[in-house]
Amino acid sequence: MRHSTSKDKVRYAVVGLGHIAQVAVLPAFKNAANSELFALVSSDSDKLQKLGKKYAIQHVYSYEEYSRALSNVDAVYLAVPNHLHREYAVRAAAAGVHVLCEKPMAPNVEDCQAMIAASRQNHAKLMIAYRLHFEAGNLEAIRLARNGKLGALRIFTSEFCQQVSDGNVRVNEFSANGGGPVYDMGVYCINAARYLFGAEPTEVLATAANNGEGRFQHVEEMTSVVMRFPEERLATFTCSFGAADISRYCLIGTKGVLQSDPAYEYAMAIKHQLTIGEKKTEKSFAKRDQFAVQLVYFSDCVLKDKEPEPSGLEGLADVRIVEAIYESARSKRAVHLPQFQVKRRPSVRQEIRRPAHGKPQIVHSKPPSREAA
Amino acid sequence: MRHSTSKDKVRYAVVGLGHIAQVAVLPAFKNAANSELFALVSSDSDKLQKLGKKYAIQHVYSYEEYSRALSNVDAVYLAVPNHLHREYAVRAAAAGVHVLCEKPMAPNVEDCQAMIAASRQNHAKLMIAYRLHFEAGNLEAIRLARNGKLGALRIFTSEFCQQVSDGNVRVNEFSANGGGPVYDMGVYCINAARYLFGAEPTEVLATAANNGEGRFQHVEEMTSVVMRFPEERLATFTCSFGAADISRYCLIGTKGVLQSDPAYEYAMAIKHQLTIGEKKTEKSFAKRDQFAVQLVYFSDCVLKDKEPEPSGLEGLADVRIVEAIYESARSKRAVHLPQFQVKRRPSVRQEIRRPAHGKPQIVHSKPPSREAA
Repeated sequence: MRHSTSKDKVRYAVVGLGHIAQVAVLPAFKNAANSELFALVSSDSDKLQKLGKKYAIQHVYSYEEYSRALSNVDAVYLAVPNHLHREYAVRAAAAGVHVLCEKPMAPNVEDCQAMIAASRQNHAKLMIAYRLHFEAGNLEAIRLARNGKLGALRIFTSEFCQQVSDGNVRVNEFSANGGGPVYDMGVYCINAARYLFGAEPTEVLATAANNGEGRFQHVEEMTSVVMRFPEERLATFTCSFGAADISRYCLIGTKGVLQSDPAYEYAMAIKHQLTIGEKKTEKSFAKRDQFAVQLVYFSDCVLKDKEPEPSGLEGLADVRIVEAIYESARSKRAVHLPQFQVKRRPSVRQEIRRPAHGKPQIVHSKPPSREAA
Repeated sequence: MRHSTSKDKVRYAVVGLGHIAQVAVLPAFKNAANSELFALVSSDSDKLQKLGKKYAIQHVYSYEEYSRALSNVDAVYLAVPNHLHREYAVRAAAAGVHVLCEKPMAPNVEDCQAMIAASRQNHAKLMIAYRLHFEAGNLEAIRLARNGKLGALRIFTSEFCQQVSDGNVRVNEFSANGGGPVYDMGVYCINAARYLFGAEPTEVLATAANNGEGRFQHVEEMTSVVMRFPEERLATFTCSFGAADISRYCLIGTKGVLQSDPAYEYAMAIKHQLTIGEKKTEKSFAKRDQFAVQLVYFSDCVLKDKEPEPSGLEGLADVRIVEAIYESARSKRAVHLPQFQVKRRPSVRQEIRRPAHGKPQIVHSKPPSREAA
């Protein structure tokens, strides 16, 4: 905590000022009393100037000045492209700066391991930004999965699709660099299957498809996946960059069915439909500031020296599955996943609430989705 | 039409008096003016006596007397176990009797081919009882799939699950005999993907799971499947005999999403939720007598010498996919499906409406599902 002006606030640099940073991360600080937006890092001097002015931030840096930025903050929020997570996380950790990193953690397991090692060696906290680990609807789904109301859990299914705009970073990076629908959207489905079943998959089957549009030159259009979990449970999902918006999962037990639709959003309320026998109940979970909550939680971990729950290991747990998915899609065979221990999982105790904010004006950045307003 | 008392009515023998025959087929005749319930065939003399009395049928036969039964009717409705379809269909056709056969058509492609050959050689009509080919909700889904409202179709997903009772024929037959969730429930998902995409899959990946309960000694508990369709479209489904009731599909295009839930039922209304951009519309399709409609349609084909749309080829089209699914689940590899031409597909022109009837009393037969009333 070298850099804090006080012991009750963590100073952040937000690194990367793309759409998610502007629309969600920067506005979140005003809802996170223990977190201070102290510095901005971007290659775009216009963004730095305009957003610096908007948020009254004096400390703005290019990527070349990243080391200087690190010397002035306690933590970074990494919103750079996926293949840069490792470099920026390792450098931060080496400087004793804590890292809150967007998901997916990295394009491959090796990068994840390097990030975990760097954070351990330097006693820097590392958290992966799984915002739904703190969101009421998803935590209620976990509670229902655990309390027996659905009976024994058997099946998870999910669809997560959007129309990604031509030229967006999500389609411009090769999957080896963490581009494509599995890294960007599939990780939500993988993560949800894991937190709802409370277990790690043992086998993966996948197939990818590509309708050949210009925007899908570097990445596949979509992928369908089957995951086998212990206790003979099955999970399937389809994620796509080329289909109309849907964000849904369904958890089927021996006694009941929980459908969440929308399930993964931050810009609208999460909804549940629960069916137990003949009885159907519906529930809506208000739109909240899911990014403020992550700052509040991570800063609390930093200030009180606690290990964050969506740890580096949690990020790695998803990335190793993504790697297996691509391997299966290539080989047209089931891919076995070795045993993997995850000690902590999200639970309803992790719920934190902060009110939603309005839509900020965006500088030089477009929403990923064609359909988004 | 040797046996008809008149040229405007087809005389039927219902062969097999299990649950579906009693709950749906027998009561349907009173809603099908061109179809006459003339004979019953069963191994259970008590059923024959009681149901004969209830429906005022004088012609009741054991299976040993099947040839005699055939000599008195124009058509049979085959509701015997799946592995007996071939024998009873081929014998009927050989006697010049038309065949309306429950789905799945048979446990394997060879049986299907034998049934098709027998019906062709003897100029007997052959129809597979795909009741949803005449149902308003599913036909409206097909219309939406064709009229461009959803944009280009990309993804189909489906869940179809129930808790099958211990000892039910569905779990007592090995899958080689057409037992198990893929033959019984998966064919609905396969058939829906085919009629919604209007195409035949080219590749299948599947995995089966079994929680080891006593009722799953002969068949798997559940199976998850990914099917690849031409134009790089993907379909996934999970069907289960060991999970809470769900009967849903989702069709995702480039512009919109159609969800149907319930989608495959005959005992309740079919429902749609259509999302095009921000606009959501819901629609309910009244519960109707889907079995009467099949009789009306098939009898019309017999009386007017027309080829039924859910033909033997349509039944075979599903069975060859089921075989590929089991092969993939065994080999843990993608299984390629050779090209397959289906000339006719269901369309909204096929809709026929007949009112629903009440629940009849059942003799010596239990509903397949634990949860069903």
